[in-house]
Amino acid sequence: MTMNLAILGATGAVGREFLTILEQRETSVGSLRLLVSARSAGKKLAFRGRDVVVEQVAHDSFDGIDIALFSAGGDTSRTWAPVAVKAGARVIDNSSAFRMDDDVPLVIPEINASVIGDASVIANPNCSTIIMNMAVWPLHRRHPVERIIVSTYQAASGAGRRAMLELESQTRDLLDGKPIEPKILPYQAAFNLFSHNSEIDATGYNTEETKMIHETRKIFAEPDLAITATCIRVPVPRAHSESINLTFRESVDENEIREILASAPGVSLIDDREANRFPMPIDVTGKDDCFVGRIRRDLSQLDGRGIELFACGDQLRKGAALNAIQIAESLGRR
Amino acid sequence: MTMNLAILGATGAVGREFLTILEQRETSVGSLRLLVSARSAGKKLAFRGRDVVVEQVAHDSFDGIDIALFSAGGDTSRTWAPVAVKAGARVIDNSSAFRMDDDVPLVIPEINASVIGDASVIANPNCSTIIMNMAVWPLHRRHPVERIIVSTYQAASGAGRRAMLELESQTRDLLDGKPIEPKILPYQAAFNLFSHNSEIDATGYNTEETKMIHETRKIFAEPDLAITATCIRVPVPRAHSESINLTFRESVDENEIREILASAPGVSLIDDREANRFPMPIDVTGKDDCFVGRIRRDLSQLDGRGIELFACGDQLRKGAALNAIQIAESLGRR
Repeated sequence: MTMNLAILGATGAVGREFLTILEQRETSVGSLRLLVSARSAGKKLAFRGRDVVVEQVAHDSFDGIDIALFSAGGDTSRTWAPVAVKAGARVIDNSSAFRMDDDVPLVIPEINASVIGDASVIANPNCSTIIMNMAVWPLHRRHPVERIIVSTYQAASGAGRRAMLELESQTRDLLDGKPIEPKILPYQAAFNLFSHNSEIDATGYNTEETKMIHETRKIFAEPDLAITATCIRVPVPRAHSESINLTFRESVDENEIREILASAPGVSLIDDREANRFPMPIDVTGKDDCFVGRIRRDLSQLDGRGIELFACGDQLRKGAALNAIQIAESLGRR
Repeated sequence: MTMNLAILGATGAVGREFLTILEQRETSVGSLRLLVSARSAGKKLAFRGRDVVVEQVAHDSFDGIDIALFSAGGDTSRTWAPVAVKAGARVIDNSSAFRMDDDVPLVIPEINASVIGDASVIANPNCSTIIMNMAVWPLHRRHPVERIIVSTYQAASGAGRRAMLELESQTRDLLDGKPIEPKILPYQAAFNLFSHNSEIDATGYNTEETKMIHETRKIFAEPDLAITATCIRVPVPRAHSESINLTFRESVDENEIREILASAPGVSLIDDREANRFPMPIDVTGKDDCFVGRIRRDLSQLDGRGIELFACGDQLRKGAALNAIQIAESLGRR
């Protein structure tokens, strides 16, 4: 099916990745409207050999659109999703605005495409959530997971295109001995790391961490799954890594865990102990799959129910734009 | 007491930090010999306003020396520690050569200075172990810890001075669009991260991780303490960070945990939820204390026995040179 698409937030890091992926996948695109909420209107972006003018979003922007991909922040989503839906479009929203709404499916197609139904707004999960879930779900399906303890190593891209550019320019300034002043990210990003800069609630968890907890429970349809997360920003451009400790309900076999992941859709293994070769951000940048390695029995869990693993995924692709486009494609197939 | 000191491995990252710290602390130093095992003999290093010539280590290098600080790798330690001891020196060894020997005390002075006794060789623990133990021991003393799950964010300095220089020059080359070829660290370090490049045993754990497990058990005198670790190298010059998940034997109070750490020797708190301000590598670089923050009840542990925290420490100071000098000072006081 040919889809008439609109992209709201087209000039951002995820917006640009939408275009890259649509070109690479040869998704059947009819008309394409590139929209922004404020800045950047009038700019041109290349798509399949022609220049598309970026327009300021307006009330008639979604007329004739089948699917609108939103990635311009929660406030913009809340304002424009009802407009797009009223115009007859289905919205796939990359912000956190609707993710936890009961009537909005929160979808990773490899896991729960079946919940989409005829929803007019479908939410794309948080990037760290998607990457963790890609590694954990294939295992959980076969051997229920009881508890997840995750520590993340998150790239600048999660804070947007300007954060990626800041990491680069700040690194250059530091090497040149120039004073630096963080503007997009809250602290020095180059040669440093810091706790994720999202609001912290009364429990001491930040919003990125509570997203990983609550979104995973919704996606897995496991409202009581025990999860704790520590989210850290590291000086990497666009791939997230995660150190994941799993406790299963029953004892599991490490080799079976490896086999399950090796055959899981959207997952690739890099797990070569002899060569000391495991997933790294540079391996996964620009790739669709989530990569998993360091698979081993957790030595601190004597009853054989513990597994450690390390996952990396491109934050802009499977962590955001690719997952949304996979949702769009599954809508297009219906 | 004035100590006649020798430093073996004087031109390395830890060797140079020994000199910096000895100057800053005004430790009472009589004679000072700077030694290297191979390269760099003849080079001069400044100490308290004069130049000291670096000598190639030889059989008479330790004559008249009270304390020899070794940081030139395990093989060099195995070769020269017996020579130094025979000459009457006490050796404080920063390598892993003797750490797990039954008759060698493995010491973090804030934790177990009492085990030093009259040992002629005293081992300085692994850097990641020290930083974790500084955060965990004050808690464990008061409320026994049952299980530690740690993920590290380790600096280039742990792989030596040339690794620090490689991170810098490689970052510059990447920004300039030049091809890079990792030489000291096994993979691209700039804008990337990778599993710690130490040998992996049959359990799937690498040596850095098994050091954290076995050394902690020895230092805490808790041979059965359940520990699992995932050690990751990140593009940070010289401060290690660690995401630490603790399970206590009994339920604990988060505020008491914070109070214990606030008053622990060698520990500083940065734990400001409102300002989103927690320990970062740039905070701790050049500092003696280990910094702890993100202290919160683990939401995945419903019985109140779980605590999450995040620790940072300067790898070259408390992680290596400072801890060894603190051991030397405690010998000097006897």
